[in-house]
Parts: sequence; structure tokens; C-alpha cells
Amino acid sequence: MNETHDLPAEDQARHAQKMARKKAARDRMMAQKTGEKGLIIVHTGPGKGKSSSGFGMIMRCIAHEMPCAVVQFIKGAWDTGERRMLTTHFADLCQFHAMGEGFTWETQDKSRDIAAAQAGWNKARDLIRDPEIRMVLLDEVNIALRYGYLDAQEVVDFLESEKPPMTHVVLTGRGAPEVLIDSADLVTEMTMIKHPFKAGIKAQAGVEY
Amino acid sequence: MNETHDLPAEDQARHAQKMARKKAARDRMMAQKTGEKGLIIVHTGPGKGKSSSGFGMIMRCIAHEMPCAVVQFIKGAWDTGERRMLTTHFADLCQFHAMGEGFTWETQDKSRDIAAAQAGWNKARDLIRDPEIRMVLLDEVNIALRYGYLDAQEVVDFLESEKPPMTHVVLTGRGAPEVLIDSADLVTEMTMIKHPFKAGIKAQAGVEY
Repeated sequence: MNETHDLPAEDQARHAQKMARKKAARDRMMAQKTGEKGLIIVHTGPGKGKSSSGFGMIMRCIAHEMPCAVVQFIKGAWDTGERRMLTTHFADLCQFHAMGEGFTWETQDKSRDIAAAQAGWNKARDLIRDPEIRMVLLDEVNIALRYGYLDAQEVVDFLESEKPPMTHVVLTGRGAPEVLIDSADLVTEMTMIKHPFKAGIKAQAGVEY
Repeated sequence: MNETHDLPAEDQARHAQKMARKKAARDRMMAQKTGEKGLIIVHTGPGKGKSSSGFGMIMRCIAHEMPCAVVQFIKGAWDTGERRMLTTHFADLCQFHAMGEGFTWETQDKSRDIAAAQAGWNKARDLIRDPEIRMVLLDEVNIALRYGYLDAQEVVDFLESEKPPMTHVVLTGRGAPEVLIDSADLVTEMTMIKHPFKAGIKAQAGVEY
């Protein structure tokens, strides 16, 4: 470890100069970014962090006292940290609706899966239409889109025509359809580099739920 | 949108059969995942969601009443949602230490950057050594590693030798060094598919901070 921070004067000066140039370039770039708008945000890909990052943004909204809402499309009555946190501490700022009935291989009932997805989407539409609500997280909705339980084009058409301009909508889950990615403002793919499930480690509190 | 959920009986039966097979395979797989351990978790890559997902996991820990801690290596006195949330509501369960002084192009002082990174790492070591603390989030530490302000091998050696077995340590930031990725249990790369900064939209409350 670098124990001394007394760098040679010329190294210091070179660094300061380089960083001054970098800051000037960055300031110029950031000065052009003045717009604000409600974003369509997509977290997809097989890696971890899609739902936890959505949940993290919901917590940021709550911290800024922005009313927000969560609709869970897959997780049903599961006692997750996010559910417990939002319903126990922040029910006044954040609505929480668990509309899922579990993964489709758990229900083994396609009609029921479709009905649950449709009910979740109906709830989501009401929440998104409400201009008081500043962010709506549709957790795992991409799974319902991927299985065709919801029509991706209809979801995109609704977001493009009825989402209030300042409302953020976050859609998480693997396999986000192209039509949604094309329409979104901010798309991140979580790529799995290494996962402990492969080493026999189970889902753990705090990390996965 | 699929308005009727009355699927033909043979479609229903085929789906149920397929999902029953999938569930059986999944149950066999999950039955082998019985281990629990404190994980070294890395979020890297240029996409969004690295810090917000770390923050989401911290909130999950709090929901499960697991003591935890955050050390911020870059963000200093910034009034972020995460800072406000943790210091206002959950100071009893989560320590929050903002040790950064801003991005290196803002300080323009390499000695000061190195000193700040070193102070952050000293604080992080104390927190990680405390077995009561179940998760420690080292936010943006990868930036300090990437610039060489901290020695990556020393960080990895410390985690491998002194981290209590059940403690999770989350390291976020672009450009995580290979030696850290090799040592980690769970690595996700956030890949940027689309970002609204490119369309002139600035960082917004709830989304970026």
C-alpha cells in the first residue's frame, strides 16, 4: 500500500493539469445536459442487480419524498426485505402491490399466470396514470412480457401515450423484448460474470431478498 | 392483449406438464444449494445500477435487521438519497461513512485523493473486521483501485484472510481489477445499452442520486 502521499512535485503538477483539463471537458459536457424528464428505465440480462437496483431507486425517491409505487409481477406473498421495508416504514410514500403468484413453473397453471399478469398490469396502469406518483417499479414484468402473458407492444404504446412526462417507470426482469428496449430511455443489461449459486450457495437474506 | 384466459384444455395440460418437469429439475438443482457464506460481491462495468443495487442490498439487510455499513470512496458531502435515507432513518442499524472528496478531476490533487482513499480503506477494514456487521458496502472503491490509490492485491489479501466468514462485502465501481474479480464470489457487469445523458438529460433525483 502506498504509505506516503508525498508525491514528487512534478507528478503532482502533471496530475493537477491533467485533471483540470478533464474537469473542463466534463463541465462542458454536463452543461449541455440540462433536460429533465420522466424516464422509461429497463434492467434486463441474466446477472444480479436488476430488482435490487430498482428497489434502490425507489428508496432514493422515498428519501427525496417523491411518492412512488411498486408492482411485483412474479413474487407473491414472499417475505422479501423490500416488501418488509416498504410496507413497514414507508407505506405513506410508497404503495406496494404484490400481484404475482410465483414463477410459472410453480403455479403450473397458464390461465392463472395470465390472469395475474393482467391484474398486475391493470394496477400498474392506474399507478402510472396518477401524476402524483413520480416513480413506478414494475418488478419482473419482463418475465410476463417474455412469456407473452402481457403484450409488449401494448405496454409500450401505453407508456408512450399515457405516462405523465415527469414519471419514471422502471421495468425489470430477464429477456426484455426489443420493442421495449427501443422505446426506453435508459437500458442496462446485467451480465453474469460469476454467481455463487454455481458453487452450491443458496439465496441469502440481504443479498437476494 | 389477451383478454380471455380460457385456454384450450390441451394447451393448459401441455403447459402444466412442461412446468411440472421444469419445477422438478429446478427443485433438484436448488436442493444442492444448501450452503451459506459471506460473499465478496462486485458490481462493475459502465452501465447504471452498480451503486443503486448495492444500496438496495443494504436496505434488504436493514429490513432483516442485519447490522451493516457503507463507506463511500468518491462521493463526499453530496446530499444523495442513500445518505439521507440511511442517516435519517436507520443510523442504529447502518453506519454511513462518506470518506470521498469528489471525483479525482474535481479535487485535482492526487496526494489528497490517495489520502482520502487510504482513510476510507482504514475505516472499511475496521468495519469488515467487526463480526456483528453483516454487510459492508464499499461504494465506488473500484475507482480508487483502478487509479492505483489503493493496492488491489492488498485489498484482496485482506478480504481473503480477515473477512469474517458470514460477512458480505460489496465493492462497486467501474473497472474492477482482475485480481478482485478472480477472488469474488458474485460478479455482475452492468452493461450500458442506452443512457439518457447522451440525449441531454441530466442526473435526476430518485434515479441517479
